[in-house]
Amino acid sequence: MKLFFDSRQAAHAPTREFHNGGWTPHAETPDRTAQVVAAVGPFIPPHDHGIAPIAAVHDARYLTFLQEAWATWVAAGREGDAIGYTFPVVHRRPLDLTRIDARLGAFSMDASTPISAGSWDAAYWGAQSALSAVDALADGARASFALCRPPGHHAGPDYLGGYCFLNNAAIAARHAAAQGMGPVAMLDVDYHHGNGTQDIFLDDDQVFFASIHADPRTDYPFYWGHADERGEGMAHGTTLNLPLPRGTDWTAYRPALDTALAAIADWGAKMLVVSFGADTYVDDPISGFALQTQDFTTMGRRIADAGLPCAIVMEGGYAVDALGVNVAAFLAGFAD
Amino acid sequence: MKLFFDSRQAAHAPTREFHNGGWTPHAETPDRTAQVVAAVGPFIPPHDHGIAPIAAVHDARYLTFLQEAWATWVAAGREGDAIGYTFPVVHRRPLDLTRIDARLGAFSMDASTPISAGSWDAAYWGAQSALSAVDALADGARASFALCRPPGHHAGPDYLGGYCFLNNAAIAARHAAAQGMGPVAMLDVDYHHGNGTQDIFLDDDQVFFASIHADPRTDYPFYWGHADERGEGMAHGTTLNLPLPRGTDWTAYRPALDTALAAIADWGAKMLVVSFGADTYVDDPISGFALQTQDFTTMGRRIADAGLPCAIVMEGGYAVDALGVNVAAFLAGFAD
Repeated sequence: MKLFFDSRQAAHAPTREFHNGGWTPHAETPDRTAQVVAAVGPFIPPHDHGIAPIAAVHDARYLTFLQEAWATWVAAGREGDAIGYTFPVVHRRPLDLTRIDARLGAFSMDASTPISAGSWDAAYWGAQSALSAVDALADGARASFALCRPPGHHAGPDYLGGYCFLNNAAIAARHAAAQGMGPVAMLDVDYHHGNGTQDIFLDDDQVFFASIHADPRTDYPFYWGHADERGEGMAHGTTLNLPLPRGTDWTAYRPALDTALAAIADWGAKMLVVSFGADTYVDDPISGFALQTQDFTTMGRRIADAGLPCAIVMEGGYAVDALGVNVAAFLAGFAD
Repeated sequence: MKLFFDSRQAAHAPTREFHNGGWTPHAETPDRTAQVVAAVGPFIPPHDHGIAPIAAVHDARYLTFLQEAWATWVAAGREGDAIGYTFPVVHRRPLDLTRIDARLGAFSMDASTPISAGSWDAAYWGAQSALSAVDALADGARASFALCRPPGHHAGPDYLGGYCFLNNAAIAARHAAAQGMGPVAMLDVDYHHGNGTQDIFLDDDQVFFASIHADPRTDYPFYWGHADERGEGMAHGTTLNLPLPRGTDWTAYRPALDTALAAIADWGAKMLVVSFGADTYVDDPISGFALQTQDFTTMGRRIADAGLPCAIVMEGGYAVDALGVNVAAFLAGFAD
């Protein structure tokens, strides 16, 4: 399997995040990718596809903001990572705002996603890794893996959040669809709901989105991922949310996976983008499912058995010491 | 002039706020009211009007959240003041969420408005002070003053923000209208735009809202208060925003006040609720206008000269040592 990663992705390295009323260390560390590189390498640097496939998913104003945010934060005399404190919960319209705090709030869904000096470069090269994973499928591979970091599935068309800036999986899916590789389905098996992916394709009936995740009544991102969210307008029925309770182990997880794969098959998908998070692991420090390392191999095998060309994109997973073996276990499920 | 204040308002006393990327001391302190009480007392405790006039402005779910927030925060094992970290910037619909972090985000517009143990009681009695100020007008007074704290004008129908929980001025205005004292106009002369008040009356053509404030392109609340916001639907034209640049002194402020008062007169108002913030003062530590203490007397006199019964409701003002004299100066403008 071709594996894609760019060392420039390590440039995103915030020191802390705002969570539950105070500062905590930033859980989404560069060491996450280092562990995976050591466990499943070697990795190939991605081909640079430029900004066009990213701009096919994210609004131009948002991309400009992301590229400028760190520099304007520093120019404002601020110390530490850039982080918003006020958010237009009700009113949200395109405004020509220049103050960094206003722009952070306008383009953020939370106060837990700091921007550090290298965040844009890291996000950019993570997206290129995802695009290169699609190219590998176009060249005939059955499966490919992009070690994206920062992750992407919480980033919407014009907002960041949940450690995410560019929605790597969505960028990969739209790139694949534009090349005629579709119909494209997306399967999100991260512990948290992929709200950004859902928003990007909410009214797009060309991409099917299925997500298995912790019930948003108890877990981030709270406001998305409830079972009654099915897509809007023409795209009603192309979103499938399968929330599961905390404590879910493989026995309880497997039926949801079967449901998602059956829906993807029924929809007539010809290609699959998987948002893979290893934070469903029993020892993940910020999550509450109970999958074991060997369950990831079974999960990968069941997805591979769907018989679709499959681009796997890295999302979460914060038990860093186990991240390499868990990713290796998942990828092993795709071995011939 | 009858002056209203309830000592229980001091129960709201957060220690810090999240601002510009880190913690700062909470600027909206109980000492603010202590200074005003010392300068312009004696104050009368308000009559308790119960929850009904508050529920005429704020959504029931939001009021339940406010009353329960501190207890659920403590029950969740959290230390310090309750403060959200994730906000439904895009998707916002009524959800039956129980986790305190989800509820804080669902009902907040920022991460700068912590809830402390006594916040609900303080906000409740602040609103009662505002209601009692209206009663004084119904009893024949020309003007009355409610020393509200916490302030109110950033609180919308179902969200908190900007140190505000219950929109005292809006509660007073709707109470007055319900008693047939209208048409009611509101004049907001706080340094910051009264976004909550605007939202509450955005599609209500029974109340006119005029605000003079720092340009939201440079100042909080950023996403509201731009000159093109005029009200919606039937109420188009009943909102008037007059943003002014940082550095504005009385010479530049006065024409905006004349414009607002002329619009209020043209609209046919029979009663006025004034959101008074002393943070337009030259030495206010978090604001950028340049009014002098004596300017507040001139401002009060011009408003009084409009000849409308006037309920004055306290909003911001963070130069605490000067707050008593600045409030006294403003009220002096209403002296016979």
